Amino acid sequence: MKIEIGPIPKPARGFRFSGVHGGLKARGRRDFAIVVADRPSVCAAVFTQNKAAAAPVVVARRNVADGRIQAVMINSGNANAGTGERGRKFTEWSCRELASRLSIDPGLILPCSTGVIGVVLERTPFARAVSLGVDGLSKNGFAAAARAIMTSDEFPKWSSRQVEIAGATVAVTAMAKGAGMIHPGMATMLCVIVTDADLSRDAAQAILNTAVAQSFNIASVDGDTSTNDAVVLLASAEAAGHCIETAGGADYDAVCTAVCAICDDLARMIVRDGEGATKLVDIFVEGLDDDARAGVVADSIVGSVLVKTAFAGADPNWGRLLAAAGNAGVDFDPDAFEVSFDEVQLVRDGMVASAEVRSMARKVMRGDAFAVRISLGSGPGRAHRITSDLTEHYVRFNSSYTS
Amino acid sequence: MKIEIGPIPKPARGFRFSGVHGGLKARGRRDFAIVVADRPSVCAAVFTQNKAAAAPVVVARRNVADGRIQAVMINSGNANAGTGERGRKFTEWSCRELASRLSIDPGLILPCSTGVIGVVLERTPFARAVSLGVDGLSKNGFAAAARAIMTSDEFPKWSSRQVEIAGATVAVTAMAKGAGMIHPGMATMLCVIVTDADLSRDAAQAILNTAVAQSFNIASVDGDTSTNDAVVLLASAEAAGHCIETAGGADYDAVCTAVCAICDDLARMIVRDGEGATKLVDIFVEGLDDDARAGVVADSIVGSVLVKTAFAGADPNWGRLLAAAGNAGVDFDPDAFEVSFDEVQLVRDGMVASAEVRSMARKVMRGDAFAVRISLGSGPGRAHRITSDLTEHYVRFNSSYTS
Repeated sequence: MKIEIGPIPKPARGFRFSGVHGGLKARGRRDFAIVVADRPSVCAAVFTQNKAAAAPVVVARRNVADGRIQAVMINSGNANAGTGERGRKFTEWSCRELASRLSIDPGLILPCSTGVIGVVLERTPFARAVSLGVDGLSKNGFAAAARAIMTSDEFPKWSSRQVEIAGATVAVTAMAKGAGMIHPGMATMLCVIVTDADLSRDAAQAILNTAVAQSFNIASVDGDTSTNDAVVLLASAEAAGHCIETAGGADYDAVCTAVCAICDDLARMIVRDGEGATKLVDIFVEGLDDDARAGVVADSIVGSVLVKTAFAGADPNWGRLLAAAGNAGVDFDPDAFEVSFDEVQLVRDGMVASAEVRSMARKVMRGDAFAVRISLGSGPGRAHRITSDLTEHYVRFNSSYTS
Repeated sequence: MKIEIGPIPKPARGFRFSGVHGGLKARGRRDFAIVVADRPSVCAAVFTQNKAAAAPVVVARRNVADGRIQAVMINSGNANAGTGERGRKFTEWSCRELASRLSIDPGLILPCSTGVIGVVLERTPFARAVSLGVDGLSKNGFAAAARAIMTSDEFPKWSSRQVEIAGATVAVTAMAKGAGMIHPGMATMLCVIVTDADLSRDAAQAILNTAVAQSFNIASVDGDTSTNDAVVLLASAEAAGHCIETAGGADYDAVCTAVCAICDDLARMIVRDGEGATKLVDIFVEGLDDDARAGVVADSIVGSVLVKTAFAGADPNWGRLLAAAGNAGVDFDPDAFEVSFDEVQLVRDGMVASAEVRSMARKVMRGDAFAVRISLGSGPGRAHRITSDLTEHYVRFNSSYTS
């Protein structure tokens, strides 16, 4: 799938970045990133709901509890998940290590890890990575950091927006990693958003929750979350302007809209980078009694391997969509079933259109992005999901990917 | 995967069978089967829970409501699903058509269809199929019928047992079709069991429920059920002996055990025939607070494409198992996680065994059948699932399979 990465963004003020090869990965590839604010900053975060949360998530949750963080430390190549008490002790040590190099409190570090599960990291190469990472910190290190957090990603992911609030220009800049397809969240998804806006903790968390709900969470098939997922928002308050204390109001809305747009960009990049994915598909389900029921049906559809292989084959196989919807356990009248591919309506009131229309639907599906709209009645409930197709490449990659 | 079909069984007394090419499928392949009892018989049935149940399921549910059926009529090549009112009218007509040829009441017909979704059948070729099918009825037609119900199956599926009860020999004989992998239930699973035991409706339904719960339902990933799934038990009472009126007692247990064994055989054949499957995997999850929680975790594991591609690659990737378990939303202590591949314990108390043990686990996984045991604590809750690996062949097949 053709990807437009876009130019490297000019990051928000008040932050330095680095991305280095510390020796955790082979062949000189970057594997260690630091995003550090000039001073302790307001921090909001959203973490995986997985019951087997990795050691860095356990420590990060604790450190962010008071709402202030100064540095996000990310290593790729090793998720430090499924490593038990030894893994947690390692993460605590690594926070102390970075904190001492930065001369800050270890509780101001937010650690993230991504990569292989079940292997305890070693201190000597990690200490070297920390040392190199601190030495490499620079206002221009954004792209290097974005590359250092990649694992199975084929390209780095970043997005940026500027908004005017109260006469000041505020920047929001984010990097993410993740090449998820069936499981966008499977040990894959990390995102760090920095802004120079002046936000209270409550406003920052409200903005982040809104943005994640509309982006990463709708890209997440079955609500899958990995052992390591984390989305972090750091606000340096470096831009002139007043503090946005609570949710609501024009300034809050402006920043929130920017963060939502950035997260939407990144979620789509993650789905597009899905291992072997060739198509980005927006799924809209409507006509159910409420949004929750529509969400259950939408999750069943994007969770269906048969649906996703039909996408790969550009096959407007509405029978698989109907069967997947019927599988969700939510009541609807199959005779009211309708489905469209972009503007081509293939099934109306349970009746299939002509072979000519089917051929038009097939043409839509040959593109690398399209929308599928499924109507199951006349209720107000609706849901939106972002997904991809499932190709042989995905199976090949994940059968041979070493554990 | 090497399959032992076994010899064609001698069917239970009191039934005739036929399997013919009626013209619904191309190239002369059998596509229409009848199983007919000499007289109206006790019938128990279990149908799909899919909310978009196909027309034949709607009619079959109605016809079996009084507990008596004389003939099961199955066509392959067309599921008559997603066909609305026209599809239901077709099925009703087809029951009248067969009933008139057999000179019985149309309410004694149990119709099943399997194949493509969304295409309304045509009466002329179907009437021809009915005519040929009735002409072909014979006590020796069992294998032909088992072949006629196949769709994407690579081999016909049958199983048989004889049991002695109260001095009489009772036969239980069954045929099934289905080549499910991720979705064993997706428009694929049908099973007809005939016995010459004398069973009450209640006893027959109790036996069938027990057998299905331990076989087809544990092979069903995410509890998936297609638009057309049906499992039917017909009891002719032709064997000498008394009527088994209620659940319980030695005779009931003997017949129930036989039906359970047959359904287990057939469920495993269906999983083995999974499109492109190369391995049959028994998943055991234990140590949760109760069976329901264990079942939710087991469903999350067998529903994980990452787990199933690791099976394909013979990779003892316990990290994917841990992450899939953690994804189920059920609480457990990740540090108590244990996993074995057959007798090889790879993870104990959250600690991974040596590279040598990992190599032994890999060897187990290179076989075409193995068991994975996952322990998540010390509770009494346990669950069992049967699944297969996921290979590139599956994706290729389902991307190109025409809708």
